Amino acid sequence: MTTIKAYAAMRPGGELKPFEYAPGELGADQVDIDIQSCGVCRSDLSMIDNSWRMAAYPLVPGHEVVGTVAAVGENVTHLPLGQTVGLGWFSRSCMTCEQCLKGDHNLCLSGEGTIIGRHGGFASRIRAQSTWVIPIPSGIDTRSAGPLFCAGITVFNPLIQHGVRPTGRVGVVGIGGLGHLAIKFSSAWGTEVTAFSSSEEKREEAYEMGAHHAVSSTDAHEIKKLAGTLDMILVTANADLDWSAFLHALRPKGTLHFVGAAPQVSAQVFDLIGAQKSISGSPLGAPSTMAKMLEFAARHEIAPTVELFKMSEVSAAVEHLRSGKARYRVVLESDF
Amino acid sequence: MTTIKAYAAMRPGGELKPFEYAPGELGADQVDIDIQSCGVCRSDLSMIDNSWRMAAYPLVPGHEVVGTVAAVGENVTHLPLGQTVGLGWFSRSCMTCEQCLKGDHNLCLSGEGTIIGRHGGFASRIRAQSTWVIPIPSGIDTRSAGPLFCAGITVFNPLIQHGVRPTGRVGVVGIGGLGHLAIKFSSAWGTEVTAFSSSEEKREEAYEMGAHHAVSSTDAHEIKKLAGTLDMILVTANADLDWSAFLHALRPKGTLHFVGAAPQVSAQVFDLIGAQKSISGSPLGAPSTMAKMLEFAARHEIAPTVELFKMSEVSAAVEHLRSGKARYRVVLESDF
Repeated sequence: MTTIKAYAAMRPGGELKPFEYAPGELGADQVDIDIQSCGVCRSDLSMIDNSWRMAAYPLVPGHEVVGTVAAVGENVTHLPLGQTVGLGWFSRSCMTCEQCLKGDHNLCLSGEGTIIGRHGGFASRIRAQSTWVIPIPSGIDTRSAGPLFCAGITVFNPLIQHGVRPTGRVGVVGIGGLGHLAIKFSSAWGTEVTAFSSSEEKREEAYEMGAHHAVSSTDAHEIKKLAGTLDMILVTANADLDWSAFLHALRPKGTLHFVGAAPQVSAQVFDLIGAQKSISGSPLGAPSTMAKMLEFAARHEIAPTVELFKMSEVSAAVEHLRSGKARYRVVLESDF
Repeated sequence: MTTIKAYAAMRPGGELKPFEYAPGELGADQVDIDIQSCGVCRSDLSMIDNSWRMAAYPLVPGHEVVGTVAAVGENVTHLPLGQTVGLGWFSRSCMTCEQCLKGDHNLCLSGEGTIIGRHGGFASRIRAQSTWVIPIPSGIDTRSAGPLFCAGITVFNPLIQHGVRPTGRVGVVGIGGLGHLAIKFSSAWGTEVTAFSSSEEKREEAYEMGAHHAVSSTDAHEIKKLAGTLDMILVTANADLDWSAFLHALRPKGTLHFVGAAPQVSAQVFDLIGAQKSISGSPLGAPSTMAKMLEFAARHEIAPTVELFKMSEVSAAVEHLRSGKARYRVVLESDF
């Protein structure tokens, strides 16, 4: 049996250190992936730090995996060995609950997270249920593709869930790992895109990503000018902003949609009732949506903007992300 | 030209007194309705009291009108004289904005309210744009029908807007003028209905209205038992409840939908993201939805539960509603 080489935090907030583990026997519905690269996400930092009180140590982070199929369980017939694939936040769903049966595997209440109670993708190899191992179509740059499997699907899924149309207008709040992909996807989707950021520098860059407008996320006066103009505002910023101002920027039937883990949102109920507005949120996306996203990304040549580190430089990569200087996503390339 | 007899408040919070006014010339797209009855709504009290700072005095309340077509403007060809019709909160929409053109006349940003800047239905006659004058089909009891045009459409519309299916589960928070109709409509819609009220007496009555379950709206322990079970929770109560508890009672993709004017709602964003939940609101409904509601109400024999007063007893009727003792809606019958 192969031993898997990895980097793990040994305690909350601890530095990542070389670590090895034996994965045990491959389950009938599982796949082993030889890892080529793995993105680094803020959720990895939250797990390293045990911010959400659900980390177990040693903790191997990493849930934006790109690699090739190295082994398949006896019931897996649709993934050939050597197939280039990706794996994201989820590594298993029950396949029997209503959500799974409806195709909403990302809403499975007993779903398994790739780095929750098991080891993730800062490693030579990773194992997951085949449902969540998604083939990467040709036309996708595999070196930068990792972040599509968490950041990408998180911002792509709301376009599907809310039935956003190319005639619509989308706002993106926060230009970071999620936000920069939200701008790229919304722009390729055909919508008019308004990017919101507190950083003037990022607002300039938003235009290159495909934004049509860029507005300060903290300038109530500027946001007020947008009253009644946006169909969906996708909040990717982990910040406490003036949500009332953003609600006013929505058109009738518009939604203020959270994918970033902002702490709390409150609203005057009248601001929702008057023009049938809503406040909503969503987690990642289902496997079928991930496949659609990849197909769409390939067609429109959408790729995360990444900074590459070697897997052995994982500590530097993590520090870079923590510093807030990543532009816009950090990816580790395997050098095991 | 006919003089219209009415009851008006002469100042904020003032008692309603006999009042007459001349309506002027009938517009080409307008209809005059000879009023048979008019419901009394909490919004009438808010307008009498100028709680929303948009009342003009003398103020004739009343926006749940039932009557017959007495005159039509030259461009109105679809409403015969004598036709039994109803009129609700809106008396005009622009017919040219995107919302009107899409059929969402209730979201017209320049729509006119029946008792905002003009005189309402506590009167012998009322005038409105023909769009908002909705024919009442046979099978509807016209004496009790008034409240369908405000309370009824307000709670029926979310079933349409959110695509609620008969296989779904609906919660109704608050059993009053709106809530009792929400229970009746949701039950006839085929859904499993859970009524929430702080009143044990009303919870008992909820079963007679068609509720399958009745739960205290203030008992966090009882609400917690419902975790993950409801597709839509319709909030008709003007109260500040534990919205977090109600959000947890929603199933994945469920919505906490406000139609009652609760002051404020706040949520942990994680409670929205995890299972793709939302908080939403809506105002009344479009003319086409009102027609559907009436057809549905006729088919299922759904009628507001009303207490009847003569129009000349308007002061007593208003006091009765203010006291919180109305079961469940007050209707004035014209005795002009």
